[in-house]
Amino acid sequence: MDFSNLISDKMLGVKASAIREIFKVAADPEIISFAGGVPAPETYPVEAIKEICADVLTSDSNKALSYGLSEGYIPLKEAVLERMRTKENINTENQDIIIVSGSQQGCDLTAKVLLNEGDGVVCEEPSFIGCLNTFRTYNAKLYGVPMNDDGMDLAILEETLKNNKNIKLIYTIPTFQNPSGITSGLAVRKGMLELAQKYNVVILEDNPYGELRFSGEKLPTIKSMDTTGHVVYLGSFSKVFSPGLRLAYLIFDKGLTEKMTVAKQATDVHTNVFSQMIASEYLQKYDIDSSIEKARQLYKHRCEYMLSCMDTYFPKIVSYTRPEGGIFIWVTCPKGTDTGALMREAVKRKVAFVPGNAFMTDVDAPSHCFRLNYSTMSDERILKGIRILGELLTEKL
Amino acid sequence: MDFSNLISDKMLGVKASAIREIFKVAADPEIISFAGGVPAPETYPVEAIKEICADVLTSDSNKALSYGLSEGYIPLKEAVLERMRTKENINTENQDIIIVSGSQQGCDLTAKVLLNEGDGVVCEEPSFIGCLNTFRTYNAKLYGVPMNDDGMDLAILEETLKNNKNIKLIYTIPTFQNPSGITSGLAVRKGMLELAQKYNVVILEDNPYGELRFSGEKLPTIKSMDTTGHVVYLGSFSKVFSPGLRLAYLIFDKGLTEKMTVAKQATDVHTNVFSQMIASEYLQKYDIDSSIEKARQLYKHRCEYMLSCMDTYFPKIVSYTRPEGGIFIWVTCPKGTDTGALMREAVKRKVAFVPGNAFMTDVDAPSHCFRLNYSTMSDERILKGIRILGELLTEKL
Repeated sequence: MDFSNLISDKMLGVKASAIREIFKVAADPEIISFAGGVPAPETYPVEAIKEICADVLTSDSNKALSYGLSEGYIPLKEAVLERMRTKENINTENQDIIIVSGSQQGCDLTAKVLLNEGDGVVCEEPSFIGCLNTFRTYNAKLYGVPMNDDGMDLAILEETLKNNKNIKLIYTIPTFQNPSGITSGLAVRKGMLELAQKYNVVILEDNPYGELRFSGEKLPTIKSMDTTGHVVYLGSFSKVFSPGLRLAYLIFDKGLTEKMTVAKQATDVHTNVFSQMIASEYLQKYDIDSSIEKARQLYKHRCEYMLSCMDTYFPKIVSYTRPEGGIFIWVTCPKGTDTGALMREAVKRKVAFVPGNAFMTDVDAPSHCFRLNYSTMSDERILKGIRILGELLTEKL
Repeated sequence: MDFSNLISDKMLGVKASAIREIFKVAADPEIISFAGGVPAPETYPVEAIKEICADVLTSDSNKALSYGLSEGYIPLKEAVLERMRTKENINTENQDIIIVSGSQQGCDLTAKVLLNEGDGVVCEEPSFIGCLNTFRTYNAKLYGVPMNDDGMDLAILEETLKNNKNIKLIYTIPTFQNPSGITSGLAVRKGMLELAQKYNVVILEDNPYGELRFSGEKLPTIKSMDTTGHVVYLGSFSKVFSPGLRLAYLIFDKGLTEKMTVAKQATDVHTNVFSQMIASEYLQKYDIDSSIEKARQLYKHRCEYMLSCMDTYFPKIVSYTRPEGGIFIWVTCPKGTDTGALMREAVKRKVAFVPGNAFMTDVDAPSHCFRLNYSTMSDERILKGIRILGELLTEKL
């Protein structure tokens, strides 16, 4: 059937993520794929989860399998808030929390609560394609602010806020950003917060990778410096526990509680109770910190090994970030390079990555940058893949 | 913080569900609550789920705990489609399926894909408050069509479609409707489909209770009669397996596949993989039909017992539906009765129900109807609660 007269305006412009097409290619086991963005499965605490499932279904199956509260499972909410107070120094007074079905849903609910069609969202340029697409499904106007080595360019951010009164939201991933691996410096964090306060817009601080620091000094979250309620904080269990269980959390000023709760209720009633109980038991009875520490060591090794291979095999006209955590490296080729064309050539040689245009507010303009992921890769595949990429770059650039 | 200048127009008008307030009251264990709408926990196949969890986490933990496809876990999709072909006679050629995080999300995605702000949605009057609220979060205009004993009044439906060119969607629960317990007759089903085709609007057929028939003759789903692709079918595991695992499915014409997939992706990436694997294993290795049969017998007894108590204790000026399945009875008091006031009085006497206005397009107008639920009630509590309600009705009416 032809639905063209029936599709909503907001969905007309949104295409299936370009990354998905690349994932299809990259699913070929012969391809060495640096295109992914998933945690290493060996970091999932499988044995603990198995024990907890048996326990929960023995002692509390009715609760686990029944409807739950839209705001989330109370013991999990409390455990997360306690963790945020102690680990991230977030003052949770006058704050509320909702457990959501993954970070993307946190972004979706924030967009639903704040955005009319045509309202503006500032994002880092480049930024996480998934959330950019979420904003697009609200017919929001995206304003990309270029990234310096220490995060968003504050002068351009202020200029953007000053000139566009339709802006309601700044979307930022300040720590080990996807796709760039960049960590916003303290001055940029403070600057973003001051500008949000000055122009009365909300900051959505998306922090899925923050706990995966393997070098350098920890920086405070923007939320921990927020005394006015302008920051909505989005944390996730996907990179430090399990992505398949779809668990994340929004922490926000109580002034948003009613609308956030109604939005969650109208979107999917509540988050999977069984998953919430598994995470809650895990936080209370097992040692998540030592599990995260193992993941950090794993990613530190893979990142450093990939960087050392790049240092060896990449031509010197190519530059790249040296992340202090997270799972991504961002590569910058000489201006004018079309990394989309480069990717198609790389796939012929059995290596995949994501060209930079996928992460831009204008996905149709070619980009001279691309994203590499190392989180699930053996040394052997890193070496082989980076060598092939290095040859390709040397040949083409 | 005061967010009043920042909240989206679509969320301004949506209030926390009135039912939630009633649920808070009803959570008092001293209250006999007929206000619920949840399945009986004794119908959850706990032992099977426990076995499956152990198996899945032993043999396939990486898959269970990792990211999955936006469209859903392939073996579950196939098992559901096969079941829909054999049990519901749905022709799945040219149809696609997406596994969603509960029926409410199926409604949310359908709304996202189809509705601009101000577009119209026809619903039964009364209808399921949860999905009405979903449509409200899209700033849709709701057109309630009154229910006869055999479903929507087709003449009023046609009049409504003819006079309102903004209508894109008809939302119906044709079988054991929530809240009325009414089952739409074959002629109404065919009539709705013909009108949807004539006016080129989509029918969202929400069928969470269809498998819970305990008397009367099975009727075909509207989807099984759909040869043009106008019907989006929404099925659920919540009432026949477990609501806490948040599993439902949308079946729709392939013309909607791309937009439905992108909507799911932008909303929460994908449905909980572990839950999907549990349901998939259950469908393949256990006997869901005998489990559903047990639920049917349980609800048949509770429904018949509640009706027999109502026959004994309710005054004759009160009428009510006699459902052939599902979990709700709809009570109609003489016109002019305010069942909201009645409910407040009932709660003082330790009995709760949901006043009818909660299910109307205009929730602020008093209703002379109310909803009773029997699915989780012991005979003893049914008898005691209905006797108290009968006394109250006799006194007040």
